[in-house]
Amino acid sequence: MIDYDSFNKISSYLTENGVALLVAEDFEGRRDPTVRFFTNHPGDALAFFATGPEPSILLVPWDINVANQYVKHDEGIDIKIVPYTDFERNPYKALKGAIEILHIQPGSRIEIPPTTSYPSFLRYVDAFPDYDILCREDGSFSILQQRRAVKLYSEVTIYRKAAAITNEVIDALEQEIRNNKFETEADVALFIERQARLRGCEGTGFETLVAGPTRSFGIHAFPAYTGAAFTGPGLSIIDFGLKYEGYTTDVTITVARGPLNRTQERMLTLVEKAYHLAVSMVKYKAATKDVAEAVDKFFEKAKKKMPHALGHGIGLEAHEAPVIRNRSDNDWIFKNGMVFTLEPGLYDPVHGGCRLENDFILVEDDLEQLTNARIIRIDE
Amino acid sequence: MIDYDSFNKISSYLTENGVALLVAEDFEGRRDPTVRFFTNHPGDALAFFATGPEPSILLVPWDINVANQYVKHDEGIDIKIVPYTDFERNPYKALKGAIEILHIQPGSRIEIPPTTSYPSFLRYVDAFPDYDILCREDGSFSILQQRRAVKLYSEVTIYRKAAAITNEVIDALEQEIRNNKFETEADVALFIERQARLRGCEGTGFETLVAGPTRSFGIHAFPAYTGAAFTGPGLSIIDFGLKYEGYTTDVTITVARGPLNRTQERMLTLVEKAYHLAVSMVKYKAATKDVAEAVDKFFEKAKKKMPHALGHGIGLEAHEAPVIRNRSDNDWIFKNGMVFTLEPGLYDPVHGGCRLENDFILVEDDLEQLTNARIIRIDE
Repeated sequence: MIDYDSFNKISSYLTENGVALLVAEDFEGRRDPTVRFFTNHPGDALAFFATGPEPSILLVPWDINVANQYVKHDEGIDIKIVPYTDFERNPYKALKGAIEILHIQPGSRIEIPPTTSYPSFLRYVDAFPDYDILCREDGSFSILQQRRAVKLYSEVTIYRKAAAITNEVIDALEQEIRNNKFETEADVALFIERQARLRGCEGTGFETLVAGPTRSFGIHAFPAYTGAAFTGPGLSIIDFGLKYEGYTTDVTITVARGPLNRTQERMLTLVEKAYHLAVSMVKYKAATKDVAEAVDKFFEKAKKKMPHALGHGIGLEAHEAPVIRNRSDNDWIFKNGMVFTLEPGLYDPVHGGCRLENDFILVEDDLEQLTNARIIRIDE
Repeated sequence: MIDYDSFNKISSYLTENGVALLVAEDFEGRRDPTVRFFTNHPGDALAFFATGPEPSILLVPWDINVANQYVKHDEGIDIKIVPYTDFERNPYKALKGAIEILHIQPGSRIEIPPTTSYPSFLRYVDAFPDYDILCREDGSFSILQQRRAVKLYSEVTIYRKAAAITNEVIDALEQEIRNNKFETEADVALFIERQARLRGCEGTGFETLVAGPTRSFGIHAFPAYTGAAFTGPGLSIIDFGLKYEGYTTDVTITVARGPLNRTQERMLTLVEKAYHLAVSMVKYKAATKDVAEAVDKFFEKAKKKMPHALGHGIGLEAHEAPVIRNRSDNDWIFKNGMVFTLEPGLYDPVHGGCRLENDFILVEDDLEQLTNARIIRIDE
């Protein structure tokens, strides 16, 4: 979605900081939702945001036909579109074009993404000696990241719809599982893919992970799903997200099919307890690190170790701000409007893995659970 | 696969260039097959390659269980494995650990990936004042890229198998299409996904694109596939790749269902002619730019424009060296052992799109077609 209020705020921020032009890139291997956030164009494009008295955008899409279909022009932001082929699909030539088209004066500051490689940064500096090229992590992109971590009303509306569809799919999945409809991991994953598309989603937010009892020991099983059996006793993991109007959910179901051994039962109990501990601790203004640390310590007491973060923000990307992990450099605080996962898990090379992951939003200081993933116990 | 001959060559190159340690990163948003190339670990890891009289590798995987399953130890390279959690999932702490574990002497040169961001490069330089940090596009990673562009016998063997499976799936697809088995784009895409897994592939090499007649105008349709009809007259595009032991194929089928109008017929004819022109021009030592330029000029004469490159190398990544496009900075030459796509296409917002893409290998100066994608014409 395009958010004009944010556009104006960012535009003001840039003006105040003396940045005349912001460059965003969204290509394979270097995805950046900034482009979609401001233009609704879904990917493979450069976008140039010019500030000043009349902010405007130059979108340089790889595919002009897709851009003409998706870009929204109708609410007061001037979005010009020039196909990337006009600049020989060369980012430096595109920037040169943007400087001309958007009338960026020599001596101005131009901010490029903080992910720009060191050699590429040097080329920008070389190619534009009359401009001040900024490449920094604490600049405009950090402001955009912080802004995107706190969802607006319009984004929350999309999330409620995305979560409702996700919950329908979770219910349908449980029914199929209990009726023994799935033989292989591929059956499960393709059921989810089909449900996503038929229910109007753009797709899945990331490659669906389905790991039957012999493969659930991996945090993210490799391959993501196979022709291996999904049936049989033990622990299985299903991790998926549905992408709706650009925004993705992210949930994990563990299927615990009996008979389980004591180690497996204990892993399930510990993960459930860790999950409830995390849910009880998330509060407005709490530090995300404190919650993650409490869960790590809970597992440590049980002589277990969780090999990944407790959770993460979700949005136009499957992993975005806030970070929810126990690392000294993490200073994120829970704020109203944040949408994020909590996903404690334990993994054992012999006994398999279990993870319980749901999506939450903090609203008026209260934690609200958006999705209904669960541990599905089947006694056999 | 792990290639020990390459390992030794790279190791010698590094030693000759005074590089004591090479750092590779393979994480979400920053994929680098170097890690898999040398360790067989399929992803989410840091890897440190130490040169000197006894080259050795430190692999730092996010998921120790997956690493223990995949890493191959048995052919003379010492691969140590330390889980990323031991370094608090922090790349700088991991490098500090690697320097200790691999005994890298102060004053040595350490090469980090050329994709390292400018801010991150500065942090490396700050954090390791006793070492010479190199971040360059014409260094070890360029050598690795050139090496990976020319496949070894063992890699070609994998490719022949991957192509054989791909051709089986193409044949099965054509049969299903001619028997009108597919109603929606999702039906087609999920058929391919299922076939991939059931035939022992790791999955698809990229998100399968299926665009029915109303959506084929996009080079890469967005969303990649939907619940929209795949049936009906006009042009449809199916673009997919199968990933086998890490290596991906990449093919595109156009389904042309009659009655077609004159514009659509002309587009098909032009794309077929362009395809044959390209095939006829690829030769040992030919410049890839010359072939791409000839195709661009052919389309120009017909007052059409192809909005993308003519082709690209394939391998552990869906897009890798060589580049096959008409851009002044492209100086790639066709060499024996290169595996690549040729994929001319035309796209019209009203009449739809068509593309024909196959995978080729240059063997003993001759071009050999590995895959059998085609334009499937159906008269109705």
